[in-house]
Amino acid sequence: MTVLIKHLRPWGKETVDLLIEAGKISKLEPSLTPPAQCQVIDGQNRLLLPGLINAHAHLDKNLLGLPWHKNQVPGPRIRDFVDFERNFRKEKNISAETQAAKQIEASIHLGITHIRTHIDIDTEAGLEHFEGVMRTKERYKDKMTLQTVAFPQSGMLIRSGTVQLLEEALKQGADCLGGLDPSSIDRDPVKHLDTLFALADRYNVELDIHLHEPGELGAFAVELIIERCKALSLQGNITLSHCFCLGQIDDRYLNHLIDGLLDTQIAVMSLGSGTSPFPPLKKLYEAGITLCTGTDGIRDTWGPHNSPDILNRVQVLAYRSGFRKDEDIEMLLDIATYSSAKVMKDGEYGLAVGKRADLVILPGDTPAQAVIEQASDRLVIKNGALVSGNVAPDKDSDNPSNI
Amino acid sequence: MTVLIKHLRPWGKETVDLLIEAGKISKLEPSLTPPAQCQVIDGQNRLLLPGLINAHAHLDKNLLGLPWHKNQVPGPRIRDFVDFERNFRKEKNISAETQAAKQIEASIHLGITHIRTHIDIDTEAGLEHFEGVMRTKERYKDKMTLQTVAFPQSGMLIRSGTVQLLEEALKQGADCLGGLDPSSIDRDPVKHLDTLFALADRYNVELDIHLHEPGELGAFAVELIIERCKALSLQGNITLSHCFCLGQIDDRYLNHLIDGLLDTQIAVMSLGSGTSPFPPLKKLYEAGITLCTGTDGIRDTWGPHNSPDILNRVQVLAYRSGFRKDEDIEMLLDIATYSSAKVMKDGEYGLAVGKRADLVILPGDTPAQAVIEQASDRLVIKNGALVSGNVAPDKDSDNPSNI
Repeated sequence: MTVLIKHLRPWGKETVDLLIEAGKISKLEPSLTPPAQCQVIDGQNRLLLPGLINAHAHLDKNLLGLPWHKNQVPGPRIRDFVDFERNFRKEKNISAETQAAKQIEASIHLGITHIRTHIDIDTEAGLEHFEGVMRTKERYKDKMTLQTVAFPQSGMLIRSGTVQLLEEALKQGADCLGGLDPSSIDRDPVKHLDTLFALADRYNVELDIHLHEPGELGAFAVELIIERCKALSLQGNITLSHCFCLGQIDDRYLNHLIDGLLDTQIAVMSLGSGTSPFPPLKKLYEAGITLCTGTDGIRDTWGPHNSPDILNRVQVLAYRSGFRKDEDIEMLLDIATYSSAKVMKDGEYGLAVGKRADLVILPGDTPAQAVIEQASDRLVIKNGALVSGNVAPDKDSDNPSNI
Repeated sequence: MTVLIKHLRPWGKETVDLLIEAGKISKLEPSLTPPAQCQVIDGQNRLLLPGLINAHAHLDKNLLGLPWHKNQVPGPRIRDFVDFERNFRKEKNISAETQAAKQIEASIHLGITHIRTHIDIDTEAGLEHFEGVMRTKERYKDKMTLQTVAFPQSGMLIRSGTVQLLEEALKQGADCLGGLDPSSIDRDPVKHLDTLFALADRYNVELDIHLHEPGELGAFAVELIIERCKALSLQGNITLSHCFCLGQIDDRYLNHLIDGLLDTQIAVMSLGSGTSPFPPLKKLYEAGITLCTGTDGIRDTWGPHNSPDILNRVQVLAYRSGFRKDEDIEMLLDIATYSSAKVMKDGEYGLAVGKRADLVILPGDTPAQAVIEQASDRLVIKNGALVSGNVAPDKDSDNPSNI
């Protein structure tokens, strides 16, 4: 399919026309003439952004479309939430396959073209959630780039048999291996990390480790992770998710950890926090750390907050970081697009000739305005095909859109 | 006009029918039979809430509907923002009258029935903004309960002539007198407060004082305000806006100030903060302090954040307070409705027979769900008249709606 979209402003810059051929951006320049057999759409001078990336989701356990869940606070510890959720999902027979599809559908309409999702694997549910999401992944393969993380949400060492299940998920095609709070949940940081690193090395997959541990405890885990990354030469293959500790230690120690993260090209995923200090995103960004962001769980038993919309996440991060300037908000949008694409190792991503046409077109004078307004009127293109939104035929063309 | 709306769940409780006669709630009970000459609407089992209240707005200086303003950070101090804004508004010739109307229109669609707005008064603009908003108030008098605060945004004592302008605004019908950071902006807390209290006492208006001052400096201002409130017997007539200091002092001192605020029935307006500690809302609420909330400035030269939607504000407050449970979120919604109505001294407000029909009807199983989802599909009633939204005629009635 060949499509010419006229009058677009890539990342808010000067107006150009965009030609998409064979799923890729083949031209991006002013005043293009449509080739034969080409649909022509009027872009109405809107913003053209690369597809939004949700680099930290829990697609398997949202409660979208189900009756409102009156949230409880099951206890003071992360582990209390984990246990409550595992039991709740079992009792209510929540289908990971169905719920993942609901969030993917919502995400497509919002201009999200890539998702990395953690999927709960534990000794009660076994691989049920994982296999459900893998079926959903297959179903949406043309519309969503989906990376799966085999995630021991209920703990790994503390629940015998979990390691074997994680390994089985890797055999079945999980893209990444997940970890979780090596000390506070799993009670043995060295054994937890050694187990993860050995598996990641053997199956040649990325590691994406949930690290909620605060302050010095979390920072100690970061040190252990940096050491193991170097020892196994896994540079560039590790993401630390949340990593609140980077916002909770003194500057001298933080600078030391930043050096280690740069050395090992370890990425940091942050979606901020409503109440806790979180990693100082501007400092990390300017230091050259690869950052990404995501939605986290949405409307689940952890709480009612969070939206599938990555623009909303960027706005919340800006609000929580005290960012008011366009340039700072655009830095966060860069994290939610180009930088997240680096984490997902998508070399075909971006607003340039030859890149895959994963795009979102939406109203706004500047990218920052798009972040603030979060307009629902978005035109979304994945692999060169229109997957959501209404198009305006180009008035000056004999060849109006018939998409 | 007589209207019967069937099948509504007041504050999420059991389904009832609502009869509105002569602008008031005349019946609220199950299975009502429509009287003669009555429009009948199907409420579709939606939530019925009292009108949302924006108790802290700056209607005169939003930039809604204008080209995107690329925000700058003009300097580190509140005063730098104040000076930048005053010059910007003058240069760009921003009409307070027009901008206030834009935000009121947006607010009506969102189910907001009451607004208290601060209006900048300074020696450069004089009463121009104030008079503009007063014209807009008159224009919307049937659709919006609007309280005006004569607000010395650029400082009062530090700009000679400001006191006289404030007094003139009170003569012209301002409902409240505003103050601003007695020490950090106005450089003389005693004289600032003595001047405000004398004017408020003489003109028999409420006081609503912006208090951004942090920690002990802000707390000292709270002490001075409590002392003056008692001395002039102005109990129940004062609101402290923002009052971040209440979230920044130790518990013993906070408890002492809470006693003083209770003694004097001084209300506290908080809309949280993206980055600073803010008053502990649950503790204050449970202590019996009258609380209210609002939108603050929206899309102005202070920053791009904030929305006209009070449900959005409640969600942000919940997120920033770490509230996940329905009951905590409903407490915040109570602050944005009933408690704010107390601050605005509207005795005819509420979901009860005899109260004025200022109402919003919207989707959601529980009030907390309405806060989280912020559905745009809202039916809004002011003074008993439908002011926004689409109605469904009642299927079982011979007397369908023709609103």
